[in-house]
Amino acid sequence: MKFPKIYTLKDIAQLIDSEFVGDENFPVYGMNEIHVVEKGDIVFVDHPKYYDKALNSDASVVLINKKVACPEGKTLLISDDPFRDFSKLATYFNPFNKADKSISESAEIGEGTIIQPNVFLGNNVTIGKNCLIHPNVVIYDGCTIGNNVTIHAGTTLGSDAFYYKNRETGFDKLISCGSIIIEDNVDIGAACTIDRGVTGNTLIKEGTKIDNQVQIGHDTIIGKKCLIASQVGIAGCTVLEDEVTLWGQVGVISGVTIGRKAVVYAQSGVSNSLEGGQAYFGSPCDVARKKYRELAGIKVLPEIINKVNKI
Amino acid sequence: MKFPKIYTLKDIAQLIDSEFVGDENFPVYGMNEIHVVEKGDIVFVDHPKYYDKALNSDASVVLINKKVACPEGKTLLISDDPFRDFSKLATYFNPFNKADKSISESAEIGEGTIIQPNVFLGNNVTIGKNCLIHPNVVIYDGCTIGNNVTIHAGTTLGSDAFYYKNRETGFDKLISCGSIIIEDNVDIGAACTIDRGVTGNTLIKEGTKIDNQVQIGHDTIIGKKCLIASQVGIAGCTVLEDEVTLWGQVGVISGVTIGRKAVVYAQSGVSNSLEGGQAYFGSPCDVARKKYRELAGIKVLPEIINKVNKI
Amino acid sequence: MKFPKIYTLKDIAQLIDSEFVGDENFPVYGMNEIHVVEKGDIVFVDHPKYYDKALNSDASVVLINKKVACPEGKTLLISDDPFRDFSKLATYFNPFNKADKSISESAEIGEGTIIQPNVFLGNNVTIGKNCLIHPNVVIYDGCTIGNNVTIHAGTTLGSDAFYYKNRETGFDKLISCGSIIIEDNVDIGAACTIDRGVTGNTLIKEGTKIDNQVQIGHDTIIGKKCLIASQVGIAGCTVLEDEVTLWGQVGVISGVTIGRKAVVYAQSGVSNSLEGGQAYFGSPCDVARKKYRELAGIKVLPEIINKVNKI
Repeated sequence: MKFPKIYTLKDIAQLIDSEFVGDENFPVYGMNEIHVVEKGDIVFVDHPKYYDKALNSDASVVLINKKVACPEGKTLLISDDPFRDFSKLATYFNPFNKADKSISESAEIGEGTIIQPNVFLGNNVTIGKNCLIHPNVVIYDGCTIGNNVTIHAGTTLGSDAFYYKNRETGFDKLISCGSIIIEDNVDIGAACTIDRGVTGNTLIKEGTKIDNQVQIGHDTIIGKKCLIASQVGIAGCTVLEDEVTLWGQVGVISGVTIGRKAVVYAQSGVSNSLEGGQAYFGSPCDVARKKYRELAGIKVLPEIINKVNKI
Repeated sequence: MKFPKIYTLKDIAQLIDSEFVGDENFPVYGMNEIHVVEKGDIVFVDHPKYYDKALNSDASVVLINKKVACPEGKTLLISDDPFRDFSKLATYFNPFNKADKSISESAEIGEGTIIQPNVFLGNNVTIGKNCLIHPNVVIYDGCTIGNNVTIHAGTTLGSDAFYYKNRETGFDKLISCGSIIIEDNVDIGAACTIDRGVTGNTLIKEGTKIDNQVQIGHDTIIGKKCLIASQVGIAGCTVLEDEVTLWGQVGVISGVTIGRKAVVYAQSGVSNSLEGGQAYFGSPCDVARKKYRELAGIKVLPEIINKVNKI
Repeated sequence: MKFPKIYTLKDIAQLIDSEFVGDENFPVYGMNEIHVVEKGDIVFVDHPKYYDKALNSDASVVLINKKVACPEGKTLLISDDPFRDFSKLATYFNPFNKADKSISESAEIGEGTIIQPNVFLGNNVTIGKNCLIHPNVVIYDGCTIGNNVTIHAGTTLGSDAFYYKNRETGFDKLISCGSIIIEDNVDIGAACTIDRGVTGNTLIKEGTKIDNQVQIGHDTIIGKKCLIASQVGIAGCTVLEDEVTLWGQVGVISGVTIGRKAVVYAQSGVSNSLEGGQAYFGSPCDVARKKYRELAGIKVLPEIINKVNKI
């Protein structure tokens, strides 16, 4: 997330009541998680295991829970609880605003777009031209929808990331301040749920078609012309390259990449990155050809066991 | 789908700007996909592999992309793109109408039926007597609901079929002009999604009970007194005969038939037609008795492998 | 369920037009299913196999289809159809009331709680302080929500239990008269469905976090600080002890208990009670360590079969 204007390091330190290391006028442009952080941004880190990764990232400001040596050209914010303070900043820059009505006045709706009854469009939602938004769709604040997009009834875009820190006192939520971008010519079925990015965007690229009851987690990127069948669940921070097909009830773990033109058969579970251009099956899945051989083996297993036991 | 009145072959040819073979006054009654086509209907075919099937079907008019010999008593519409032109006809005869309000004026609601708040009833929806439609249910245009039907909150009836043609330029959607029929004494849980037929009807027969978050695809027929547990997904064009039981999270592929009184255990995947009167398990599923023997075999597999490796 | 006031045995017998055995002034406090029944309550039983269990339960009134000997200190209601009459009482004491508007006048909403547009709150719903109820959430009559609870869009709380008696003439529904209690600091994702208890409560304890599209059945109890990922389905009458983690698309059968701090990996199926403190995988699931050994075995199975066939 980029801030609405440039802040100074001192401004930010005051917002979270923390010490800082570096020039107080050092410019801060935004805040982001480690995997999407850019120059000018704040990143946070609270585990020594990841200190180096954060300090060597593109981030210009590292919100950290130890006074370490500050890398050249960067600055530090020293906090006893970087997770808490990152959420505090997310809330400050992206406060929740109660809606006064179903269609926010700040929502922009393109020419030729039809909004059916009982739809909710939050603040600063942008919808392109010639879209069809069916009844009871909910689009949270700040989401961006392209042209020629159809969204079927009861679908939710922009709910919070499922992202918690396990503390003694209970789960502590990382406040989501990212958003969602749906590109042109995407169709989304009924009763789907797509979470916003934590600091970046969940992105559905051009021409992708999504069936009913599909779940897509925060910061996930779905390529162009993908086909996602009903009841598929895709966790957060996952990448589907272009023209991937996922059949019904497939599950995909967080953080993996599925290569271009891969096909994953129904009910499979994707627990590792997959090379493109191949078909996969099983939970956990493997190359379908191999998996079918294993399944054939399982069918004759009882008689093989008999045979072995007689030896 | 039947047309609101009888059209002539020439009328239809003009609508899609195509050549025709046959009497220009040949009467046309409707349009349907190959598996539900009836005498008097148009069917479309765009792959030589299926030409014979279409020409020998009950269709009276074949929308085809080659000037073949016209069978006796039938007519042809010659198009460079039958898929596109079939969708064009579907849109012409079943145009999308923006709703003015949540409950359409043309919706018919039977005596004793309760419609809770925030429900959407599209144009020409018919609901029988003594039904209970819970809040935020969405029923698209033209769906028909019988008597004593309960539909829980957030369920969507009548969303489009997930049916696309893969073109170089992107997926091209076959426009759905079919509908949904829900017979008497059916219960449907919360957050279910049932797609309309492409040209025919998705049909849920009398006395069937459906739990929450169930997905039923286009043109699927669910028999009488079936029991469908939560999070089941049934693809399009599938048939469940009477008194079939599907337990939680079962997935059923498109185009198969599950026989009367079959029981499919939780999380199973049905990838072939199943005979009635038996219990099934596994993904892909098999007769449960057989599958349990295989599972028992898998449990001892590590020691069997040890044994074999010592031989 | 407790009645709004104390009834006499005679009152109840008149409501269902049944004979009774015992003092006509015997006080009746409520009605409950066998697994949650308390002193003063009615329980029902219609199968000789369960007569003893019902007669020896904590129930003070047994609604039964045979004139058996009445245990000391208890009373009987003799009915030709206890299931029908139990439902009749449930309807009498908990009649369905059509809503006049989206937010019932009898709903109580605590200080600092935000209710977004298109939300439905039924009669006698209670919501605590500082909650955030996103658009299109539906909360049926009588549900109770604690403080600091977030519920994302399109979620339904309080739909009926999926509980039917299979009769010749069709499925007969047991009318749900129980409710739902959500404790403090619970987060519930988008498009979730949580059913009310049949006579008792479905209960989500403090600090539990639930992702999108999760289904939780009637009378299920989710412990404190559980983490339930997207598209999990939990059947009715199940118990999750505290700090249980269920990953995406897990299914849990009815009536089992998952022990404290158990972790169930994605797409697993829980068909038996599980001891706490361990990780589980597979459908049906087993201890993950064991299951991984089996999966490794399956991968080499084709070559093992070759080997055995050559012996």
